[in-house]
Amino acid sequence: MSEAAPTVDADVGPFASELIAQVRAQDTYGYWEGKPDRELLAPFIIDRQRARAIPLVGDPDPQTLTRISQFYNAVALSIERRSGVMASPVQQLSSEGFGRIVLIGGRLVLVSKTIRDAHRFGFASLERLEADGEALVEAALAAIEHYPDAACAD
Amino acid sequence: MSEAAPTVDADVGPFASELIAQVRAQDTYGYWEGKPDRELLAPFIIDRQRARAIPLVGDPDPQTLTRISQFYNAVALSIERRSGVMASPVQQLSSEGFGRIVLIGGRLVLVSKTIRDAHRFGFASLERLEADGEALVEAALAAIEHYPDAACAD
Repeated sequence: MSEAAPTVDADVGPFASELIAQVRAQDTYGYWEGKPDRELLAPFIIDRQRARAIPLVGDPDPQTLTRISQFYNAVALSIERRSGVMASPVQQLSSEGFGRIVLIGGRLVLVSKTIRDAHRFGFASLERLEADGEALVEAALAAIEHYPDAACAD
Repeated sequence: MSEAAPTVDADVGPFASELIAQVRAQDTYGYWEGKPDRELLAPFIIDRQRARAIPLVGDPDPQTLTRISQFYNAVALSIERRSGVMASPVQQLSSEGFGRIVLIGGRLVLVSKTIRDAHRFGFASLERLEADGEALVEAALAAIEHYPDAACAD
């Protein structure tokens, strides 16, 4: 069931590559066409300077909510690519940016993440984004290995 | 872990009793105080006549969304009461009334329900409500029995 990973800039890891493919796939108006991959990942990176500029309390804007969906879709697709288990996201977020995201595969909960302060969603660096995404994917793959029957149930 | 079911009118089943307890528990302003249980369940019952009065296409109003949450909370509490497995709902619904509700217990998906036409949410009769609620609870209990390790995982 595993497919070849999407091709992107040589210097980003497999998770970031999947995320880039996600963003480009949703680029209905060609906004990102011809722009380099790193530029496209820039909105996901909230370094110390950008973090300081974001108020501690606030409501997430639609772009931030889209990025959260794209990130977890990339986690879901990475899981599917490496295990063959189709992962579907269910995302419950209040307008104040609190809630929960789960990825479901068969009868198994592959990922369950409590979301707080969705308006501050981002990663300190590209390396952090890669590591955090990979950690979620790998924990899900370990769960599939541990509960293979539940993961493959209807 | 099982507790006594809430006491209500003698003539409603165990699922409807749990739902009544749910509605009363959320009755912060005492709106339902002193009113009989059957009256409180009335908004959940969409008989043929009421069904005809609801447009086929429409957005769910906040009261309908609340009733959907109350129904699935009652399913969750019934599961917990009878199995000891804590069930938490994650509900993703678009403003057009499409989406998905899952109940999660440990690493196990206890209930997964696709929602369409949320604005028409309701049951043809009190007997139908009881039967549909019970069917969800019983399917979840069977899943817990089938995947006990996943249901009790962190």
